[in-house]
Amino acid sequence: MERRRFIKTAAAGAAVGAIASPAIAQSMPEVKWRLTSSFPKSLDTIYGGAETLSKAVAEMTDNRFQIQVFAAGEIVPGLQALDAVSNGTVEACHTVSYYYVGKDPTFAVPSSVPFGLNARMQNAWLWQGGGNELFEKFYQKFNVYALPAGNTGAQMGGWFRKEIKNVADMSGLKMRIGGIAGQVLQKIGVVPQQIAGGDIYPALEKGTIDGAEWVGPYDDEKLGFNKVAPFYYYPGFWEGGPAVHAMFNLGKWNELPKAYKNILTAACHQANTIMQAKYDIVNVPALKRLVGAGAQLRPFPADVMEASFRASTELYNELSGRNPDFKAAIDAMRAIRGDSYLWWQVAEYTFDTFMIRARARG
Amino acid sequence: MERRRFIKTAAAGAAVGAIASPAIAQSMPEVKWRLTSSFPKSLDTIYGGAETLSKAVAEMTDNRFQIQVFAAGEIVPGLQALDAVSNGTVEACHTVSYYYVGKDPTFAVPSSVPFGLNARMQNAWLWQGGGNELFEKFYQKFNVYALPAGNTGAQMGGWFRKEIKNVADMSGLKMRIGGIAGQVLQKIGVVPQQIAGGDIYPALEKGTIDGAEWVGPYDDEKLGFNKVAPFYYYPGFWEGGPAVHAMFNLGKWNELPKAYKNILTAACHQANTIMQAKYDIVNVPALKRLVGAGAQLRPFPADVMEASFRASTELYNELSGRNPDFKAAIDAMRAIRGDSYLWWQVAEYTFDTFMIRARARG
Repeated sequence: MERRRFIKTAAAGAAVGAIASPAIAQSMPEVKWRLTSSFPKSLDTIYGGAETLSKAVAEMTDNRFQIQVFAAGEIVPGLQALDAVSNGTVEACHTVSYYYVGKDPTFAVPSSVPFGLNARMQNAWLWQGGGNELFEKFYQKFNVYALPAGNTGAQMGGWFRKEIKNVADMSGLKMRIGGIAGQVLQKIGVVPQQIAGGDIYPALEKGTIDGAEWVGPYDDEKLGFNKVAPFYYYPGFWEGGPAVHAMFNLGKWNELPKAYKNILTAACHQANTIMQAKYDIVNVPALKRLVGAGAQLRPFPADVMEASFRASTELYNELSGRNPDFKAAIDAMRAIRGDSYLWWQVAEYTFDTFMIRARARG
Repeated sequence: MERRRFIKTAAAGAAVGAIASPAIAQSMPEVKWRLTSSFPKSLDTIYGGAETLSKAVAEMTDNRFQIQVFAAGEIVPGLQALDAVSNGTVEACHTVSYYYVGKDPTFAVPSSVPFGLNARMQNAWLWQGGGNELFEKFYQKFNVYALPAGNTGAQMGGWFRKEIKNVADMSGLKMRIGGIAGQVLQKIGVVPQQIAGGDIYPALEKGTIDGAEWVGPYDDEKLGFNKVAPFYYYPGFWEGGPAVHAMFNLGKWNELPKAYKNILTAACHQANTIMQAKYDIVNVPALKRLVGAGAQLRPFPADVMEASFRASTELYNELSGRNPDFKAAIDAMRAIRGDSYLWWQVAEYTFDTFMIRARARG
């Protein structure tokens, strides 16, 4: 009886435990995904966003949900990341949505368009201003679900072999720049060139191209552009606050237990903040080193900015005329932009203005 | 025997299931925490940060880890949130670290000090510039572990009954403002007043005080200050980008399974972005309504800003002389501030400048 009582008690105890366990196993199953990054490992800032995401998901689930990160080219080339997710080759990618404007120009708007939003406004729009919901429907057409998972902040305008004194100097300039930004600059006379990252340096060195845009001080420094094109222009007005997205195959996303969807969403938030924070920290010493090594910092001349702004408006109107998705997206962005800068100029901008001047005075 | 065999089999079956389940049950146990917010529910923006956190944690764990949120006053008054966590009355709070400068002025630095960092810089410093690690040691002295979990962005400078034309107009001004900011303004002649949120309106109406600072358009509008103190000044230079923190009882934090620590960290990231994003969206229509209702928007005169900046430097030097923790914190902040604005003024600021001007021209 002693033994029998023990067994009964143990069984009862196990049965109590078993009420919860199958429910846990169902909601926290073993899941292994592959994620293709659009970036090489050498860009530790932006490639690092996918690593932050992957690590956070694994650590939140005691490795039950694993997302293995592959660099661009390991499974598919960087610019085929969306296709690979869309057709199910991999479950996920970490990419910039504007890479896919060849499919539809609407892809640019959730990441960045010329004279769009700064990084904080882009986050505000996407997360609390209806942006993510708007693009959820658009991305569904391509069989993906996407969330913001990184930002670079405002980028630099790029490296030029010669000084640019006015908008006339842009005419005929062969510049490495793609997508919507290339189309805008084409309207002010630039001849956009599509060149992969690794080929930019020799092209600038030989003079095959006159200028090239990349990201900002930290990433640019690695490619050594300052040695062959010393004039470093700002701002990169086509990327005021570009969001990097994590994209998930729609079927695979839908299959995830609810808890995993929430874990993945929170991991995107973590990657989003950490990538921006890392850029904000590492760009500073890189900028100092570049200037120390002879880079000539220059703001784009006012007429270059003005002409480009007009060109962007013209382009958006053209695209809106033939693409309702683009029209809906760009109209929503413009509404947020007008409102956001109305408020930004009050407290944020006047605070920054004072701090910049105070710093300059020492 | 039938019954006995059944029991044995049931026990064995439960044991097989138990190979995986106890591991899961150990790492994902049922945990119920209480969190006291320092804010009333009526401040849905900042109180909402704790709700975002709580909801994210529950949804990531299928409700196995539940954090029940209580408004200020439901368990302890808002300004006793840290004490309640420190002494274990509750496991967590959502508060602003600078509320506790009475214990030690160092508490101000991880949230915001006058002429400190803007919101993105504060995030960069805390998450990637060594800030969180620096303050982890400081917070340990008070038996808490803390993570950033929200930001308001640059705040407004507050509401005044009369126009302020120069720094002399600040002299003798009774203003509702506390903490380090109050000490800075005291140095330029202001008489700081400590008044709870609900008592500000009648004090302004009766003229018991001449001015009051609160948060920004959306939160300020609820208290109706524009009706009794129409001059609305900016920027709130004492809160360029104040972080709101989630604080956890150190013992309770340490007891959490590793997965829950990571889930809570990711939930803080989510709350951090969502709170800022919400402020950025809701402040805009509130600002329009306030101006429509007669609020007179004014930048602080340059000499008010200059005198306050000098006063802040003076105060930081005084505090540093007698408090090594404060000195370490403020020196680290200043180093980040100098570097961050060096870079900010290049791409970010020139982009914002152009966009603000473009908007103004329509």
